[in-house]
Amino acid sequence: MVVDSQLQKPLRPKDGTAGIERPRALAESIPEDPSPLLALASRHVVSSRQFDRETLTQLFRLSAQYESTPALMHLPLQGKILISAFYEPSTRTRLSFESAWHRLGGDIMSITDPKSTGMAKGESIQDIAEMFNNYGDVIVLRNNEDRSVYDMLDALRIPIVNAGNGIDEHPTQAMADVYTIFKWRPELLDPDLPRDKRIRVGIIGVPNRMRTVRSLLLLLARFPTAIEEVVIFTDQDSPFDEGQAEELNQAGLSVRVSKRLEPELPDLDVVYINAIAWVGDSYEQMGAELKLSTHSPLKKDSIILHPLARGEELDTDLDPTLHNWYFAQARGAVFVRMALLTCMVRRVSEVMDT
Amino acid sequence: MVVDSQLQKPLRPKDGTAGIERPRALAESIPEDPSPLLALASRHVVSSRQFDRETLTQLFRLSAQYESTPALMHLPLQGKILISAFYEPSTRTRLSFESAWHRLGGDIMSITDPKSTGMAKGESIQDIAEMFNNYGDVIVLRNNEDRSVYDMLDALRIPIVNAGNGIDEHPTQAMADVYTIFKWRPELLDPDLPRDKRIRVGIIGVPNRMRTVRSLLLLLARFPTAIEEVVIFTDQDSPFDEGQAEELNQAGLSVRVSKRLEPELPDLDVVYINAIAWVGDSYEQMGAELKLSTHSPLKKDSIILHPLARGEELDTDLDPTLHNWYFAQARGAVFVRMALLTCMVRRVSEVMDT
Amino acid sequence: MVVDSQLQKPLRPKDGTAGIERPRALAESIPEDPSPLLALASRHVVSSRQFDRETLTQLFRLSAQYESTPALMHLPLQGKILISAFYEPSTRTRLSFESAWHRLGGDIMSITDPKSTGMAKGESIQDIAEMFNNYGDVIVLRNNEDRSVYDMLDALRIPIVNAGNGIDEHPTQAMADVYTIFKWRPELLDPDLPRDKRIRVGIIGVPNRMRTVRSLLLLLARFPTAIEEVVIFTDQDSPFDEGQAEELNQAGLSVRVSKRLEPELPDLDVVYINAIAWVGDSYEQMGAELKLSTHSPLKKDSIILHPLARGEELDTDLDPTLHNWYFAQARGAVFVRMALLTCMVRRVSEVMDT
Repeated sequence: MVVDSQLQKPLRPKDGTAGIERPRALAESIPEDPSPLLALASRHVVSSRQFDRETLTQLFRLSAQYESTPALMHLPLQGKILISAFYEPSTRTRLSFESAWHRLGGDIMSITDPKSTGMAKGESIQDIAEMFNNYGDVIVLRNNEDRSVYDMLDALRIPIVNAGNGIDEHPTQAMADVYTIFKWRPELLDPDLPRDKRIRVGIIGVPNRMRTVRSLLLLLARFPTAIEEVVIFTDQDSPFDEGQAEELNQAGLSVRVSKRLEPELPDLDVVYINAIAWVGDSYEQMGAELKLSTHSPLKKDSIILHPLARGEELDTDLDPTLHNWYFAQARGAVFVRMALLTCMVRRVSEVMDT
Repeated sequence: MVVDSQLQKPLRPKDGTAGIERPRALAESIPEDPSPLLALASRHVVSSRQFDRETLTQLFRLSAQYESTPALMHLPLQGKILISAFYEPSTRTRLSFESAWHRLGGDIMSITDPKSTGMAKGESIQDIAEMFNNYGDVIVLRNNEDRSVYDMLDALRIPIVNAGNGIDEHPTQAMADVYTIFKWRPELLDPDLPRDKRIRVGIIGVPNRMRTVRSLLLLLARFPTAIEEVVIFTDQDSPFDEGQAEELNQAGLSVRVSKRLEPELPDLDVVYINAIAWVGDSYEQMGAELKLSTHSPLKKDSIILHPLARGEELDTDLDPTLHNWYFAQARGAVFVRMALLTCMVRRVSEVMDT
Repeated sequence: MVVDSQLQKPLRPKDGTAGIERPRALAESIPEDPSPLLALASRHVVSSRQFDRETLTQLFRLSAQYESTPALMHLPLQGKILISAFYEPSTRTRLSFESAWHRLGGDIMSITDPKSTGMAKGESIQDIAEMFNNYGDVIVLRNNEDRSVYDMLDALRIPIVNAGNGIDEHPTQAMADVYTIFKWRPELLDPDLPRDKRIRVGIIGVPNRMRTVRSLLLLLARFPTAIEEVVIFTDQDSPFDEGQAEELNQAGLSVRVSKRLEPELPDLDVVYINAIAWVGDSYEQMGAELKLSTHSPLKKDSIILHPLARGEELDTDLDPTLHNWYFAQARGAVFVRMALLTCMVRRVSEVMDT
């Protein structure tokens, strides 16, 4: 059982995407402007729609500052309590939020066993919201019903973050996705980017059935000057809700659907893959056609994003390649959440020169 | 799905019962006397019987100080560890205790999955107590067996709080109930209160089968000069254990039983309702007769208390009315627990001028 | 229900094995040498094999310093996050680690519901390791599969502690066991101990099927000058894996197997008992012959160790006797883990004069 050689090896060093150089370069490329972040104080975060380009840009700047600073000088959330309410189990997203909150110095109360909660006993969502008012300073809610987070809003006196509501939205995941793209190429934030520098983004997923894809598309639409085209790869015949594609087009995002991945891969700069489509409490895998491995005809210098956890759709043989930005994406999600939570509890002035 | 107007609204403001004026008025009406609180140091809290009028009054004073102080100057429980052991699931009570402990600066270890614990594996309650001695500074225990908390006492070297033991007691809930009544009318604490100012309290519930009612009656009996009469509304034929009513009467509390709520409602100043009677692992609803809504003939200026979570017995149409003190009651419970826990870990001198 | 006399009694005082004199004597008997502890920085802790005599001795010195110091001057792990991942339920070991981490000032994220985790959903152990890299500073892992912790090592950039992997090892439990023996008799650490002062250790358990026994034997083999003989009491015909007994003998530990406990008890100075042999997800009790009570012919001044939780194999009538060192053992485990974790996160210099 003992693998002595393993135990004597030093810890695995961080790879190229995990250093502090890239977030530092991103932070330095963005002029500081605290005003959009100050406007997030005590605001709910439910939908990607709530965020404009300026707010996102400043959030990414603060995220990059956090990521490039090994240890925080002070802990802006000391004495603040997060209610981490995961009525739909999710270790990964829960730990990401909780890690963000702890790194800022705050305390946490977790709800991880849906069966033991009032919601399971038939308590109304409004009464649960009223309960949360008394016990914490911010709520993070994951629930498999689309409406729950909206039904809570009127009763809340503390801000809430939607950490995934059914098949509707997952806005902080989308922020982490877009943050990763800008860490990879900070110049994409330039509104005067030459047209031939724009990127082509492929998304393997179903916009009207995957909350991560829905939220990501809404955020990408805030940066149409960075994106030549988004191609959706799906085996579904009706991958959009009514009005969903139109909203994106009106924002200036060019979106197209394709059923064949391989012929398009050589032209994609960013490939976003997410094979789990939640359907009620269960989920289904997308078609076997839509898989990625080192045998896929990926463009040189292209990057792959995946919200994780992955299944067979993303081969581990890609892990040691430079296409692997999905690990950096997961790591960056902690810093994006740190930035957002700092703003929500009115502590921006402690970490920026406001 | 998006409800833009909701997201642009500011957070719901606190209502009249949630401000700092009422707790401040209560705190100022009570002369400070730290001695009964100092006597709580390292003491177990198992039964309402342990608390006399002076101790309760000073606890309410400290609770009101906490409630009327937006942020604590220092964190008296820093470095202290709470063992939050809920062998019977209860999100609401657990979060209330944990929020109290965190607001005082302490750390928490939670036990929320009864199936994974030693108790489920047949470990003796004494061995579990011995385990707790080594790992924490205070225990909060919820268990569906009446005897568990008593069986632990001899083995403990750290203090324990009974957060509900079967159908026996739930003393900190009762403290929160009575605290709410005194926040509503601080003059009720005056031992020389004129007889015509005394209040009439209705309790919808079963004293020998509901731990909240049993504990509440014991605490009300400490303030007989404030209470003209307590009326118990129940459809049970034997709502008292042997000696239970006599103990209350001997303390000076006038207690009467009634089966019909409506005719008595117009004469009640405080209506306490709690429709869940735990019977073993399950529970039953009281008779449909004993319900409250805006259609009930409530006395003007009367208040409603409910330990929550509520079912159909308490209509949400009462929420926006001035009868709704049950939300204030839930909020106040955090501050009552803060006060009690501060005393138990010998930190009163850090928050009072002793 | 109320037991008034119980509630008025002061908390149970610490017994003779629980004071600070014994750990202080142990600490003072060991000359300080920080170098082996500094070498533990950022190292995984998976097997007892990783620890030599010098490292263990200095760990015990630091553990004893922690145990004899009522409150820590500073909190060396402030701002550090522990990922407490118990995929096999264990309240006792989890709380012991979490208490150690909290006492050092750190924050914790717990995984206690195996069913809600990625591992249950088929996520690979390597992807889970990569997730942990992003969210915490140290991992404590309990899993019922022997291989899991080893399979994680290559992917980790933060150190991990094996808190029990199937029937393989549980090294920190073994450290607590041996620490208890040296607290009992610090002179056993003397490499020039006269032969007639050596102790005889009985172990009731199966070395190849109990992780606690496997790890304990490996650590005892680091101190052959303290031990005259180890006698294994078991009803199994093949209690050793291939090479297991040979490895111990080569290290200088004399090990013998016996099936009859009673005739040997009068000659044993330390009796280690552990009746639970995990076999997959279930477990079996050892033979009824191998039980201890006050009726057992225990040697005067001998001590009993048990990793707890206990079953019927260890009678509670031994609890008030001087043979009971199992409660001290459980208490000491917290301090041993504090010492080890302090070293792993490179904070030794904050608590020692390096």
